[in-house]
Amino acid sequence: MSNRGMLIVLSGPSGVGKGTVRKAIFEQDNNKFHYSVSMTTRQMRPGETNGKDYYFVSQDEFESEIAAGDMLEYARYVDNYYGTPLKYVNKMLEDGKDVFLEIEVNGAMQVRKKCPDGLFIFLTPPDLMELRHRIIERGTDDLATIDKRMHKAVGEIEMMQNYDYAVVNDEVPVAVEKIKTIIRAERWRVKRFLPNYKKQLGDVFK
Amino acid sequence: MSNRGMLIVLSGPSGVGKGTVRKAIFEQDNNKFHYSVSMTTRQMRPGETNGKDYYFVSQDEFESEIAAGDMLEYARYVDNYYGTPLKYVNKMLEDGKDVFLEIEVNGAMQVRKKCPDGLFIFLTPPDLMELRHRIIERGTDDLATIDKRMHKAVGEIEMMQNYDYAVVNDEVPVAVEKIKTIIRAERWRVKRFLPNYKKQLGDVFK
Repeated sequence: MSNRGMLIVLSGPSGVGKGTVRKAIFEQDNNKFHYSVSMTTRQMRPGETNGKDYYFVSQDEFESEIAAGDMLEYARYVDNYYGTPLKYVNKMLEDGKDVFLEIEVNGAMQVRKKCPDGLFIFLTPPDLMELRHRIIERGTDDLATIDKRMHKAVGEIEMMQNYDYAVVNDEVPVAVEKIKTIIRAERWRVKRFLPNYKKQLGDVFK
Repeated sequence: MSNRGMLIVLSGPSGVGKGTVRKAIFEQDNNKFHYSVSMTTRQMRPGETNGKDYYFVSQDEFESEIAAGDMLEYARYVDNYYGTPLKYVNKMLEDGKDVFLEIEVNGAMQVRKKCPDGLFIFLTPPDLMELRHRIIERGTDDLATIDKRMHKAVGEIEMMQNYDYAVVNDEVPVAVEKIKTIIRAERWRVKRFLPNYKKQLGDVFK
C-alpha cells in the first residue's frame, strides 16, 4: 500500500514565468513529479501543443466540465477560462504519485480550500516594473490588457500570504533550484512525516 | 539595518545523536549559524570542553540564573539541569545572525512558546530498539537510567507533532544534509520572506 502523493502547486502573477520555470523543472532527468496539464479556452500560441501545454477546448466544453463538477479549480481570466481537470489529479495522488500543478492565483486558492495539505509555492517577479517589462516583451497582448494585468498583479502579490513559500524568479535556474529544495524539505515536515513514521515503528511504539 | 536572525532549534530524544549531528553541521565550512552553548549541571564527560560543549556549572549557579529570569529554556533531566542562557541568543538574533540551539525536548517546547517564529527540527532514531542500543553502547549510564530514558523517549516521539520538521538520524551525513536543506527552504517561507519583500518593493507596491 503506497502513501498518498503530495500535491505541489506553483502559482504567481501572470507573466512572472511560471510556465518557463515549470518546464525547466520537468526537463531535469531527476524530477519525479507528474504534471497535471491544465485546460483552457484561450487561443493556442506558436510553439504550444494541445495536450502538452494545455488541453485547448471551446468555451462550451469548458462550461460543461464546470457544471459536471469535474474541475479541481478554474478561473475566468482575461476573457478566457483556465482550469485543472479533477479526475487525473485524484488518481495520481491515490497511486502515491506527486502531482505538480502550475496554475493562476485564483485557481490556487480554490485548490487550497479543497486540498489544505498541498504544498503552495508563489513565484514572484523581482519587482513590478520587471513584470511589466516581461509582459510587454512577450508582445501578445495590447496595452489595455497589460494594464488590466498590472492592476491584478499588485493584488496577487498581496495574496502571497496565502501561500507556504515565495520564490523570486530573478533567474530561472536559481528559481528552479529553490523550488526543488523546498519540495525536498517539505517531505520532512511533521504533518507529512509523522503518519508514515508511526506506521514504521509499529508495535514498538504502542 | 539588518533583518532579525532566524532561531533554529534542533531537538529530539536523549541518545538520538543531536550533539553529533550539530557538530557535523558546524564542522562544515559553509555553515553560517551561530551556536548557542548550553549550560548544564551534569558531569563533564571525557573529551568535552567547558564553554564549548556546555557551560558546566554547579546546581546553585544554575538555580540563580533561573531565579534571575536569565534562561531562555531549561529542564531538569536525569537529576541534572540543562538550559540556554538568554542574553547571547537575543543579542545574536537582533544583530541579524541565525542562532542554532541543540536542546532537550522540554526546553524546545519552552522556546516554542517564547519564540513561535523559530524553526523547530526534531531528530528521531530509526526505531526505538536502535535508540536503546545506542544508549547502551555509550556505556555511561546504568540500566535503571536507560529504562527511564526509554520510557521518556516514547513520550518524546509523540511530541514530534509539536515540531515543524522531523529528520531520522539513520546516517549522520544524510541527517546533516536534510537539516541544511530544511533551513535553506525555510528562508523562502512566506512568513519569513514577505516582510522583507514588501520593503524591497517600496513605492511600487503602494
